[in-house]
Amino acid sequence: MPAHETTLRVRYGECDMQGIVFNAHYLAWFDVANTELWRDAVGSWAALTEQGLEAVVAEARLRFRAPARFDEEVVLRTTVAALGETSMTTTCDVVRDGELLVAGELRHVFLDGTTWEKVRIPDWVRSRLEPYSA
Amino acid sequence: MPAHETTLRVRYGECDMQGIVFNAHYLAWFDVANTELWRDAVGSWAALTEQGLEAVVAEARLRFRAPARFDEEVVLRTTVAALGETSMTTTCDVVRDGELLVAGELRHVFLDGTTWEKVRIPDWVRSRLEPYSA
Amino acid sequence: MPAHETTLRVRYGECDMQGIVFNAHYLAWFDVANTELWRDAVGSWAALTEQGLEAVVAEARLRFRAPARFDEEVVLRTTVAALGETSMTTTCDVVRDGELLVAGELRHVFLDGTTWEKVRIPDWVRSRLEPYSA
Amino acid sequence: MPAHETTLRVRYGECDMQGIVFNAHYLAWFDVANTELWRDAVGSWAALTEQGLEAVVAEARLRFRAPARFDEEVVLRTTVAALGETSMTTTCDVVRDGELLVAGELRHVFLDGTTWEKVRIPDWVRSRLEPYSA
Repeated sequence: MPAHETTLRVRYGECDMQGIVFNAHYLAWFDVANTELWRDAVGSWAALTEQGLEAVVAEARLRFRAPARFDEEVVLRTTVAALGETSMTTTCDVVRDGELLVAGELRHVFLDGTTWEKVRIPDWVRSRLEPYSA
Repeated sequence: MPAHETTLRVRYGECDMQGIVFNAHYLAWFDVANTELWRDAVGSWAALTEQGLEAVVAEARLRFRAPARFDEEVVLRTTVAALGETSMTTTCDVVRDGELLVAGELRHVFLDGTTWEKVRIPDWVRSRLEPYSA
Repeated sequence: MPAHETTLRVRYGECDMQGIVFNAHYLAWFDVANTELWRDAVGSWAALTEQGLEAVVAEARLRFRAPARFDEEVVLRTTVAALGETSMTTTCDVVRDGELLVAGELRHVFLDGTTWEKVRIPDWVRSRLEPYSA
Repeated sequence: MPAHETTLRVRYGECDMQGIVFNAHYLAWFDVANTELWRDAVGSWAALTEQGLEAVVAEARLRFRAPARFDEEVVLRTTVAALGETSMTTTCDVVRDGELLVAGELRHVFLDGTTWEKVRIPDWVRSRLEPYSA
């Protein structure tokens, strides 16, 4: 199953004095990538919160192999690596011209938007994410 | 009346490939400066929202004279330049060692947090901001 | 002459607790819009720095009329409002479904990348920007 | 050996629609924490680049246990967990009133600033970091 792909162009303000994307922005990009995967798989993210659910990042891991630079187009390849009871693990590879720049992994936990207690991933969400599962 | 002062140290990730603070971060700094002026004058910003009020930026102006750079300490000198019926204008000078780097001006409008309609600045807010008025 | 248009989708991390785009991000967007106008008019921004030139923002002005929100697509309509000897003024309107949300104005100054002294806008740049001039 | 501590106050623009600090900002904070540890241990970060060296993040890991919120003061507790030949691993705990909110880990690699090849950590750097080693 192919990963979901989102294309971004590196913004000037995302690059630091080393002439490369400042590391924190990759986490922001992973969020964009997850939103886009979600849009294609499940629908708008807002549909989740309207159902009284939230999702927060519980864990993140990034391995930096080569830097992205200003004005480059990079592809974010996102896959649902695991779907647990209450959590979802996604991987997000940042790729430029076929070269892996950064390998990311996020674990989101689903919460009740009122109590902020963990909740099971609803079946309607789970069934729509499964086609994107590794 | 002296301006309110907030000191910040420039973060690495706030500097761009030119080796200077990327322009958008100054707006973020002005927000910090306003929060700190507010803390000393009125109290925590949360006290405002707990009263059902919000404030949004309606206008912003920045004049850049010289760049701030990584690791420098800058002082944000903030003054309440005008207190209208429903709006507050603040000026914020970014100063390094007595040199003016950026001159900023913000106009906030006060809103009802439910209807998002403009509201009069409450008297308890106005009276506490007046000592900081130019 | 039609303005140059760049479309952006609002990122989750660009929205604050009021559920709207935090004001500083609009300045970052204007930079994206200018880069894209530049790409279509002049070529990649890097071509400028390779010629030993830099451009910095000398002035910025923003008027906020209505907020953009998460996941919305907004159009940045950018025009070269004035081309001076050493400076360029651009306007950037943030528009959603035909509604003006934020009106921005930036004045860039061109500098020698070594001395950081003001320089005349090169003719090859000027002639390519003129079609986008108001 | 006590960890190095840096205190930050959460900025409004760092919080998202969930009313909590957006995850990407923690990576930016870790960078601030490392700069401050570096300042106390080694000196200004600029002293490194003036010696022709750079350091880049090769790996980052974050475990989110509880959210930080607007206006809170958090302490970043930073330790040098490992000093390799060419890399340095630091841990950074984000703590509020003694409660661990986020546990971070960064691995920096040292590079020649011209060739961008890995280089051994210079002895003058190593000896000054050792007092902060776990």
